[in-house]
Amino acid sequence: MADTSRRSFIQAATTGVVAASLTAAATAADAPAAAPAAPVATGPTFTHQQQPTPLPFDPKSLKGLSERLIGSHWENNYGGAVKALNTIRGRLAQALADPNLPPYVYTGLKREQALRTGSIVYHDLYFGGLGGNGTADGATRSLLARHFGSFDAWETEFRRIGNGLGGGSGWVLLAWNPTLKVLENSWLADHSGGVTGSTPILVMDMYEHAFQMDYGAAAAKYIDAYMANVNWEVVAARLKAVPA
Amino acid sequence: MADTSRRSFIQAATTGVVAASLTAAATAADAPAAAPAAPVATGPTFTHQQQPTPLPFDPKSLKGLSERLIGSHWENNYGGAVKALNTIRGRLAQALADPNLPPYVYTGLKREQALRTGSIVYHDLYFGGLGGNGTADGATRSLLARHFGSFDAWETEFRRIGNGLGGGSGWVLLAWNPTLKVLENSWLADHSGGVTGSTPILVMDMYEHAFQMDYGAAAAKYIDAYMANVNWEVVAARLKAVPA
Amino acid sequence: MADTSRRSFIQAATTGVVAASLTAAATAADAPAAAPAAPVATGPTFTHQQQPTPLPFDPKSLKGLSERLIGSHWENNYGGAVKALNTIRGRLAQALADPNLPPYVYTGLKREQALRTGSIVYHDLYFGGLGGNGTADGATRSLLARHFGSFDAWETEFRRIGNGLGGGSGWVLLAWNPTLKVLENSWLADHSGGVTGSTPILVMDMYEHAFQMDYGAAAAKYIDAYMANVNWEVVAARLKAVPA
Amino acid sequence: MADTSRRSFIQAATTGVVAASLTAAATAADAPAAAPAAPVATGPTFTHQQQPTPLPFDPKSLKGLSERLIGSHWENNYGGAVKALNTIRGRLAQALADPNLPPYVYTGLKREQALRTGSIVYHDLYFGGLGGNGTADGATRSLLARHFGSFDAWETEFRRIGNGLGGGSGWVLLAWNPTLKVLENSWLADHSGGVTGSTPILVMDMYEHAFQMDYGAAAAKYIDAYMANVNWEVVAARLKAVPA
Repeated sequence: MADTSRRSFIQAATTGVVAASLTAAATAADAPAAAPAAPVATGPTFTHQQQPTPLPFDPKSLKGLSERLIGSHWENNYGGAVKALNTIRGRLAQALADPNLPPYVYTGLKREQALRTGSIVYHDLYFGGLGGNGTADGATRSLLARHFGSFDAWETEFRRIGNGLGGGSGWVLLAWNPTLKVLENSWLADHSGGVTGSTPILVMDMYEHAFQMDYGAAAAKYIDAYMANVNWEVVAARLKAVPA
Repeated sequence: MADTSRRSFIQAATTGVVAASLTAAATAADAPAAAPAAPVATGPTFTHQQQPTPLPFDPKSLKGLSERLIGSHWENNYGGAVKALNTIRGRLAQALADPNLPPYVYTGLKREQALRTGSIVYHDLYFGGLGGNGTADGATRSLLARHFGSFDAWETEFRRIGNGLGGGSGWVLLAWNPTLKVLENSWLADHSGGVTGSTPILVMDMYEHAFQMDYGAAAAKYIDAYMANVNWEVVAARLKAVPA
Repeated sequence: MADTSRRSFIQAATTGVVAASLTAAATAADAPAAAPAAPVATGPTFTHQQQPTPLPFDPKSLKGLSERLIGSHWENNYGGAVKALNTIRGRLAQALADPNLPPYVYTGLKREQALRTGSIVYHDLYFGGLGGNGTADGATRSLLARHFGSFDAWETEFRRIGNGLGGGSGWVLLAWNPTLKVLENSWLADHSGGVTGSTPILVMDMYEHAFQMDYGAAAAKYIDAYMANVNWEVVAARLKAVPA
Repeated sequence: MADTSRRSFIQAATTGVVAASLTAAATAADAPAAAPAAPVATGPTFTHQQQPTPLPFDPKSLKGLSERLIGSHWENNYGGAVKALNTIRGRLAQALADPNLPPYVYTGLKREQALRTGSIVYHDLYFGGLGGNGTADGATRSLLARHFGSFDAWETEFRRIGNGLGGGSGWVLLAWNPTLKVLENSWLADHSGGVTGSTPILVMDMYEHAFQMDYGAAAAKYIDAYMANVNWEVVAARLKAVPA
C-alpha cells in the first residue's frame, strides 16, 4: 500500500473533504447541542407501580411441578420482575428529566424495562394458563386442527420449539396474529421478544427457572408436565378472539 | 492440582456416578428416540401466503422523506420480508414432517419466521401511520399528557429512544399494555421484539434502511422528518383502544 | 386523506415510477437468479467433530457446588452443545451445496452454530477455571488492582454484572482487549455474545442451569460459591497474555 | 376452578408455606441489604479514552464504495461508537461507586458498553482489511481450500451469510477458533456478538450504514464491491495465526 494513501482520515476531515456532510450527524449521535428544558414527566406511565397477580390455583395441586418450583418461580422470577420494573420506572422519570443524558444511556434503561415488562406479561399468561387437567375439549381440538391441519401438528410444533429452547431460555407462544390473520406458534428468544398486536392464547416458559429444580436439564420431561397441567378452559376462553 | 482429580468426568459417568440422572435429559436434547409419525400439517398456519399492504398515501407527498427512500423501503425491506415469510412458511411444514429433525434446527427456522413476521407487522403499522401533517389535535395531546405528564414528555422519550437506536437498528413503539394498564413507549431491539397482547398505537422504524438514503447517519434529522409526517388521525383512531 | 393518494404503491411500481431502482435489490434479497454450481465443501470446517474436554477436577471436590449440579451441567448443557454442534456442522455442508437455499434459511442454521460454538468455548473456560481455592495470590491481586483501581473494584463489578443477569441468562467475562488495550469485565447476553480477538481470562456462567439445582433463584449465593472455587493459578497463567 | 384454589399465593407466602426458602433469593435479586463501601475504581479500565484509528487507505481509492459512504461510515458510525464508549466508561465508574444501584441498571450500561466495544473492534478490522485489489494469492487460496474444501466453498458461505443479513444488521466473520481448532465463518447478530478467544481474519460489515448510501437495499451488490476491495495482504498476515 502506498504511503500516501495512509494519511489519516482525520487529516482529510479537517481539510474539509468530508466534514461538511458529517457535522449534523456527528452532533446528532449525542444529546442535542441546545438542550431543551426537561419535560414534565409525572403521569402514570412514569409512576405506575405493578402488583403481582396471585396464582389462580393451589400451588400444591399441579401434577409433576412441585410447590417449591412453582413457589420460587412465582415469588422470585415473576415477583422479582415486578419489583425490578417498579424500580426502573422511577429511574426513567429521573433520567428523562436530564437533558444531557446520552440517548444510548437512556436506551440501556429502556431495554431493562422491556425485559421486565415482557417477563410480567408472559408470566401472568403462563400461571394463568396452568391449573387444569391438560385435556383440550373437542371444540378446541377442532379449532386448532382447522388452523394447523391437525391438533397433533399444533402440539408437535409447540413442543418442538420448546425442545429447541431447552438449555437456553425463551418462551413458546401460541397467538392470533390479526395482521396475517393466522393462528400460530412462535419462538421468543427472551422476555423482550413478542408480536405487538397479537392476542396471546398459550405461553410456555422455557427459561431454566421453570424446570431445573424439578427436572434438571430434562426439558422434554418438563414440557410433558407443563402440557399435563394446561387449563384448557382458559385457553378456550382466549381463543374466542380468533374469528370463526 | 492433584493428578487424581484430573480423571476424566467421562470415566466417572461410565462408572455410573452421574449416568442415572442424566440419561433422560441427554436423550431429550435431541429428537425423541421413538419418533412419532409425522403429523398432518396442512392448515392455513402452514400454507398462508401474505400479500403486501399498498401504501395508504402517495409516496411523492411526504415532507423530507423522498419517494426513492419510501419506495425502496416498501418494496425491498417490507416486500422482502413478505416474500421471505412466504418461503419460510412452506419450509416449516416440510421440516415439521421430519421427525428426526433436531429441534434446534427447527428453532433456527422459527427465529427467521419471527423476524419476518415482526417486520411485516411493524412495517404495516409504520406506513399506515404516515401520510399526515404531523400535528396532533387537542384531544390526542390531552390523552398523551394524561398518561405521560405532558405531551412533551411523551415526545421527548419517543425521540430519545429513537436517537439511542440511531446507527444500530430496531423500532420505537407506543402501545397500550392491558396487563400493566399503562400507555408507554418501548424499545425493540429488532423485528422479533415486542409485547404480545399490547395494542400498538405508533411505531417508528429505526433500521438504517428507513433513513440512510436521505439522511446518511443523521438519525435525529430523520426523526424530525418522521414526526412531521405522522398521520395523527390514524393515531387517534388507534388510541380508542385505551380505556378512558 | 384524499382518495387519490390511496392508490396502491403496487400500481405506482408497475407503471414504472419506482421499478427501475428496485429490481436489482429485490432480486438480491433471494438466491441469485442464475445459481452457481455447488462448491466443494469437504474440509475440516464442515467435517470437524468436537469432543468434550474432561473436567479438570473431581466433581465431588467443589465447595457449595454439588456433584449432581456440576455433572448435569457438564454432561447435558456443555455435552449437549457439543453434540448439537457436531450435528449442525454436517447439515451446513448439505445446505451450502443447495444453490437455491434462501440465504436467510442458511443464516438460521449459522445462528444455531454460533450459539453452540460459544457454549463450548465458554464452558471449556468455565470448567477450566474452577477447582481452585478461590484465593488470588498477591501478584494477581496487584495486576487487577493496577487495571481496575483496586481488586475490590474488579470483584464488585464482576459480581454485579452476574447479579444483573440473575434470573435471565448469559455470561460474565473478564478479558484482555488488545484493540482497546484494556483489561475489562463484560456482559454477554447469551452464548453468541463475545469480543472476537480478546483473550479470555475468567468466565462465569449465569445461565440458570449453572445454579438452579443447588440454589434455586438465589443467584447471589451461587456467585459466592463460584468465587470460592475459582482456580486462580489458571487465571494467573491466562493473565500472562496481558502486557506488563 | 374451585374458589378455594384461587386463594392468593401471597396469602400462602405470608403464612409461611413458601417464605422460608425464598427469602435469600428475593433479597438477592436486588442490591445486598448491607451495602459494602464503594470500591476504588480509578484504573485504566474505568478511565481509558479510545482514539479512532485513521483509515489505512485513501477513501477516494475504493472501487464501488464512494468516499461519501466510507467517510460517513468512518466518522459517524465508527467515530460515534468511539465517542459513546468514552462517555459510557466515565459513567461506569460513577455507577459502580453507588452501592445502592440495582445490578440490572448497571447491566443496562454494560450492554451499551458491549455494543460500542464490539463496534470499535469490528470496524477497526473492517477498515483495516479494505484498500486492496480483491485478489487472494495462491497460498491464501490454498490455505482456505484446505480448511473449507475449496476457496469457492469459503467465498460462497461468506457471501451467503452476508446476504442472509441483508436488510437487517450484523457482521460476517472469518476467524480461527483455537478451542475447536477450526477456521470458520460466523454470523454475528450485532456488535455484541463474537467468539472471545478466536483470532479474527476478515470481517464484513452488514449494518445498512455500510451500503445504503451507495446501493440502497441491494446488499448483494455491496458484497461484490466489498470483495473487490479486500486487502488480501492484510488477510494473509492475519492468517499466520492459523497453525500449519
